[in-house]
Amino acid sequence: MDAVTLEMVRLLSRRSGLARRIGEAKRGIGAPVDDAAREASLRSKVAAACAGEGEAAMASRLLNFLINESVQVQSDAAPAAATSHTAIFQEAKRLEEEGHDIVHMEVGEPDSAPPEHAAAALAAACAAGHTKYGTAPGIAELRDAAAEIESAHGTPLTRENVIVTMGARFAIYLAIESLLSPGDELVVIEPAWPAYAQCAMRAGVKVTRVRTTLESKWEPDISEIESAITPNTKMIAINYPNNPTGKVLPARRQREIIDVAARRSLYVLSDEIYAPYSLVEWHSALESGHDRTIVTQSLSKSHAMTGFRVGYAVAPPREAQRMARLQSLCLTCVPTPVQHAALAALRAEPPGAARETLERLRGLAPMAAEAGLEFDGPDGAMYVFGRLPRGLDGGEVALECLRRGLAIAPGAGFGGYGPFVRLSACREAPVLARGMDILNSVLSGGGP
Amino acid sequence: MDAVTLEMVRLLSRRSGLARRIGEAKRGIGAPVDDAAREASLRSKVAAACAGEGEAAMASRLLNFLINESVQVQSDAAPAAATSHTAIFQEAKRLEEEGHDIVHMEVGEPDSAPPEHAAAALAAACAAGHTKYGTAPGIAELRDAAAEIESAHGTPLTRENVIVTMGARFAIYLAIESLLSPGDELVVIEPAWPAYAQCAMRAGVKVTRVRTTLESKWEPDISEIESAITPNTKMIAINYPNNPTGKVLPARRQREIIDVAARRSLYVLSDEIYAPYSLVEWHSALESGHDRTIVTQSLSKSHAMTGFRVGYAVAPPREAQRMARLQSLCLTCVPTPVQHAALAALRAEPPGAARETLERLRGLAPMAAEAGLEFDGPDGAMYVFGRLPRGLDGGEVALECLRRGLAIAPGAGFGGYGPFVRLSACREAPVLARGMDILNSVLSGGGP
Repeated sequence: MDAVTLEMVRLLSRRSGLARRIGEAKRGIGAPVDDAAREASLRSKVAAACAGEGEAAMASRLLNFLINESVQVQSDAAPAAATSHTAIFQEAKRLEEEGHDIVHMEVGEPDSAPPEHAAAALAAACAAGHTKYGTAPGIAELRDAAAEIESAHGTPLTRENVIVTMGARFAIYLAIESLLSPGDELVVIEPAWPAYAQCAMRAGVKVTRVRTTLESKWEPDISEIESAITPNTKMIAINYPNNPTGKVLPARRQREIIDVAARRSLYVLSDEIYAPYSLVEWHSALESGHDRTIVTQSLSKSHAMTGFRVGYAVAPPREAQRMARLQSLCLTCVPTPVQHAALAALRAEPPGAARETLERLRGLAPMAAEAGLEFDGPDGAMYVFGRLPRGLDGGEVALECLRRGLAIAPGAGFGGYGPFVRLSACREAPVLARGMDILNSVLSGGGP
Repeated sequence: MDAVTLEMVRLLSRRSGLARRIGEAKRGIGAPVDDAAREASLRSKVAAACAGEGEAAMASRLLNFLINESVQVQSDAAPAAATSHTAIFQEAKRLEEEGHDIVHMEVGEPDSAPPEHAAAALAAACAAGHTKYGTAPGIAELRDAAAEIESAHGTPLTRENVIVTMGARFAIYLAIESLLSPGDELVVIEPAWPAYAQCAMRAGVKVTRVRTTLESKWEPDISEIESAITPNTKMIAINYPNNPTGKVLPARRQREIIDVAARRSLYVLSDEIYAPYSLVEWHSALESGHDRTIVTQSLSKSHAMTGFRVGYAVAPPREAQRMARLQSLCLTCVPTPVQHAALAALRAEPPGAARETLERLRGLAPMAAEAGLEFDGPDGAMYVFGRLPRGLDGGEVALECLRRGLAIAPGAGFGGYGPFVRLSACREAPVLARGMDILNSVLSGGGP
């Protein structure tokens, strides 16, 4: 056994020497390190060389290991990650703690107060004894309430389909970490909220990016999605109304994507936190009836409860259980008082946060056009995602804006959209106008 | 490159065939699947065959991959994981939701109410506007308060050393996931709270277990710790007062462990959530001054705030930042209203939860002795960890107790202590007596 192992080590060393030389050659001609066609060809050769399913699975794990190693060897000289909207937000908050005045247009955070019922339930939590450990999937009444709401999309759901999570963010982390394995692949349609790809990369899951463009109104091409799928693909992430573009797909197009996923038995991870923020007809992925659908929801946007960090995932029971097991390991459960506040919020009338923000978005769009940004009028969400004039870089403009008291999100963080920025409409009109003045001053000064 | 890869796949298949035959032979003679001495010998052969540090690191990653594969192949016929205290707790909660009456002696949860100041701060959170996103490491005042408290152990700390987390549980998850890499090793002194090993295994980190025994009063042998350390070891986890044994190490012994870690530049992950629950002299790992010390703390036990899910980690600034980046990805921040409740709790007088529970623990010990359990009188924490009479199995006894309305924690969950159970003293004396009646009825009936 030792002799076999030492021979493998020798071959690995030879392989990494080859990878290094290929990397140098690729850099010489400006080619990307990652090469999907070559990888697919190698995968089929390996599969053909294997006898039986167990051996093929093991060989595939080795191949994933080797590909990660050689991408790492080939990327050694690559530049560091671009500025993200999270980095800008954290820096803006730090500046505020130092006493600076910042206009927040980098973050999707309604500025209204949480609903009265939620505030009252939080205030009453200790007196009501809601202060002890709970089960990992959440309190039964809250799961029932979520199941009832989501059953409106046509598939009858029970609490077994629901897990209460720390916002949609942790729901996505749990779904990717607990349903996918290292070497699996996730298809992400870009531009996209960066968490899908970031969670996948942390989990050793390969991210395959399907780019969309402003010119095609941010609609993904179905054939591009199909050709992004390999035998290792396990999940496709969609998010409509979209962050950052505000796009809502036509019903037929969304259905085509889900049909592709269903034919290949892929999970559809549909992040639907902007559902109440739609200016056009919108459809939940749950309408499709595809049995591997996972929907993530949050009270952050719908109920202006960002700081509560509470949301939920809807999933088949087996998948919900796997997610709950990881939540149990990470943090036992979502804070019990917070769950009771969420329950009160879901039971009350839907609040007006969405209507108000959409009104502000309607006001922001012409200001963004006037500043010289090119964009597609948003169908929903709370953002304008626009291309800067004169090939300016979003990261540099965002940093200069922050120096002058305006936080905005660079496009690079949403997947290589360097010349774009995302402007959030979550502030009162005069505040937005003040922010746009700062952006205009940066742009009219010839850029940063 | 393809030829080299295919040859590696062929060797992998041959290697796994060998592993399968070795696994069968081991099962035949009852030997464990994992074999530290053989692995160490293979590692030194591989290291000797490598030229340079980069190549040795890559070979070590391949070796970790191969060892994981063969342990998996060899373990295919092994039984499923043992019953854990978390599984018992989740099942007990489910039974309660169905209307059953359960005595909870499986969980370390003070039954007193959270401090008045914390309840008041939570109730006031919405009116005070504490409902928005915060930064990943937590609100500055809370980090300052924690830094001041922990500075009492001799090392001056600032907010840069503190990250507010979802209880100590998430602090441990963040430390292991963000500071260790797949293939690194973590030394765990057993019996231990299972989360250290579970988090490590999820992260692809190898767990090396140093067993302690009731006969040696749960004191680890320094030479065993030293011989558990390999060039891949990056962290050692300690937890005193200990869950489940209640042990507090003599100051000199704890210092010896930290000195070993310091000499080998290992992180010391010291989980100190039971610090207020000590009946004897206790010392924080922070007293050592070892610069790679990470301490986890929680308000769950100290302030009877289990359901709030709030705690913190103290770490060097660079490590705190890495943990905060992962917390940002997972959940943005700990819920803002909860952080303000925690701040109020830390600023008020320490509550009486610890004194009361220790009183109950003093009352539980003689009842456990009378039931026939063998144990070392606890120095602190909130548990009796005892060996059942007549070689009875803790898992089977726990399941039979649960059927009769008593939840207790099987010893197997704390690392292969099958004949043990952990009894929690967190209930009023009459409730504990009722629980012990159920345990006695199970034991006197000749076992489950």
